[in-house]
Amino acid sequence: MTDYNELFTRIRKLAGDVDKIILELVPEKEPKTLYDAARHYPLAGGKRVRPFVVLRATEAVGGDPEKALYPAAAVEFIHNYSLVHDDIMDMDELRRGRPTVHKVWGINMAILAGDLLFSKAFEAVAKAKVDPDKKARILEVLVKTSNELCEGQALDIEFETRDEVTVDEYLKMISGKTGALFDGSATIGAIVGTDNEEYIQALSKWGRNVGIAFQIWDDVLDLIADEKKLGKPVGSDIRKGKKTLIVSHFFQNASEDDKAEFLKVFGKYAGDAKGDALIHDERVKEEVERAIELLKKYGSIDYAAQYAKDLVKEANEALKVLPESEARRDLELLAEFLVEREF
Amino acid sequence: MTDYNELFTRIRKLAGDVDKIILELVPEKEPKTLYDAARHYPLAGGKRVRPFVVLRATEAVGGDPEKALYPAAAVEFIHNYSLVHDDIMDMDELRRGRPTVHKVWGINMAILAGDLLFSKAFEAVAKAKVDPDKKARILEVLVKTSNELCEGQALDIEFETRDEVTVDEYLKMISGKTGALFDGSATIGAIVGTDNEEYIQALSKWGRNVGIAFQIWDDVLDLIADEKKLGKPVGSDIRKGKKTLIVSHFFQNASEDDKAEFLKVFGKYAGDAKGDALIHDERVKEEVERAIELLKKYGSIDYAAQYAKDLVKEANEALKVLPESEARRDLELLAEFLVEREF
Repeated sequence: MTDYNELFTRIRKLAGDVDKIILELVPEKEPKTLYDAARHYPLAGGKRVRPFVVLRATEAVGGDPEKALYPAAAVEFIHNYSLVHDDIMDMDELRRGRPTVHKVWGINMAILAGDLLFSKAFEAVAKAKVDPDKKARILEVLVKTSNELCEGQALDIEFETRDEVTVDEYLKMISGKTGALFDGSATIGAIVGTDNEEYIQALSKWGRNVGIAFQIWDDVLDLIADEKKLGKPVGSDIRKGKKTLIVSHFFQNASEDDKAEFLKVFGKYAGDAKGDALIHDERVKEEVERAIELLKKYGSIDYAAQYAKDLVKEANEALKVLPESEARRDLELLAEFLVEREF
Repeated sequence: MTDYNELFTRIRKLAGDVDKIILELVPEKEPKTLYDAARHYPLAGGKRVRPFVVLRATEAVGGDPEKALYPAAAVEFIHNYSLVHDDIMDMDELRRGRPTVHKVWGINMAILAGDLLFSKAFEAVAKAKVDPDKKARILEVLVKTSNELCEGQALDIEFETRDEVTVDEYLKMISGKTGALFDGSATIGAIVGTDNEEYIQALSKWGRNVGIAFQIWDDVLDLIADEKKLGKPVGSDIRKGKKTLIVSHFFQNASEDDKAEFLKVFGKYAGDAKGDALIHDERVKEEVERAIELLKKYGSIDYAAQYAKDLVKEANEALKVLPESEARRDLELLAEFLVEREF
């Protein structure tokens, strides 16, 4: 496996620059509850992968990454707003090992904190140190991105009440839910740095593919990862009944008998907060293991893993129109890492 | 009382122009649930007062209101997004006689529909037919407005758990919650139409004052209006324990005995969905009437009514730097109407 340590060092360095802007826009101020709630996720860390994409995209097309700092903060604000609101919708109680915003401040303040972060994303665009033409174009891309995020999340909610979701439907959903913001990040970075439409389109395509691959790989990891590295029980998506690419592939290929057996455990603990505790129950563990065996029988996990890797290959292929540079190499490395990581 | 019928006719006419843009940006499309939920309030009517302010402000400074149509839609989207999210927070079940978004589609989809409307506000800015410099400035104003809206709403939530709220604290809260968006509407309209900073500042001041006066007058009406014209039981704010300018004035002036008596009914039905039904209970009616008598004893209702009227007078005074025109006159008339209306 490639050594990603130098990449990580550069990600951390740029994260520091972006964090200054995030904390400038969401400082400690009154009304204290609102700003504390809004600062909760930004202060909890997070790798700032999307801002890194913005900054490296600007450099990869020959631009000055200094000019991309506010746009980089903008996409991180969009990411954080959606985390706050999604956590309410999913009734999640923990994120990065800390209580979610609505667990600490209640649902009302969490809705509002998400709204403020959303607003701050556009404030970051307004403050971008680019000429007004580019600012208008960045605004267009960010709006398209945030519309798509809402649409993707709406599909995800809709899927919860459906029995089956096809591969195409699933891909459309995550194209909105995770593809759009990686696409938006890479596109905005490119717009800051260049007027070359070919470069901008290449980065847009790269981002879309990488965002989708990132989510698919997450779903794969839920089934095959080392529990200690992952930090959550293996197969939690199965118990929750999460409709992933893997599950869609299985339903499109499995025999009726195998489907029926899979459904005995799939979604059995949906909406049950005690689901995670139950994993230590040997019977539940066995059920989940059996479900994973069934997914393996039809090659569904390998199918999804390969799908993610192919998307990344295609993504990095698209970057070849750009001149070689450390920034381009970093984007390629990041994409590869996202579908090789074990946690 | 002035005859406002011609004003209303012009408001309705311009509302039609703005509605075309609103429905262009939030059309019937997939995911259907999301777009249906997002269209629920825009389709339920509403007077489009804020878009009217945008368009008339543009004309009042000598600009072309055609160029202000998308910005006018933008402020209406902000207004509607905040209604959707506020209704969740207030657990309101009805708006304009129809079930609220979260009552029909559930809290999750309502959060998301509000988010989409928020995003659409910025899409409307992106689509504005103004040069990029003006677009960047409109974006700045809209961001400031939506930050203030969140802050005002956060203060409002905070006030719920407080015993008393001073006059100054109350004014700060509604300055954010209703002043900011009227200010933003008038300011954005002015920016579309002129580069004259004196004009822009005059409209900003006009909007801020009018927005605050509008809310104060709402609070007054809750206590003195004809129940049939108002469409809700008189004194509902008292039963809910809503901290208004009137109540703040009362608490700053009343004797301890009168405060104690007022507190017997004030907030007695807070968070009780049955509160509205109870108004037909004769005992509750008497309690509310007694509370209103106490407010009258200290002149608190008159104080607030006069406060609103003074704000409007000051607002219209500020407009005198503008040349006389039908548009300016409409803004003055609208301001007067907002603190004379009986419903």
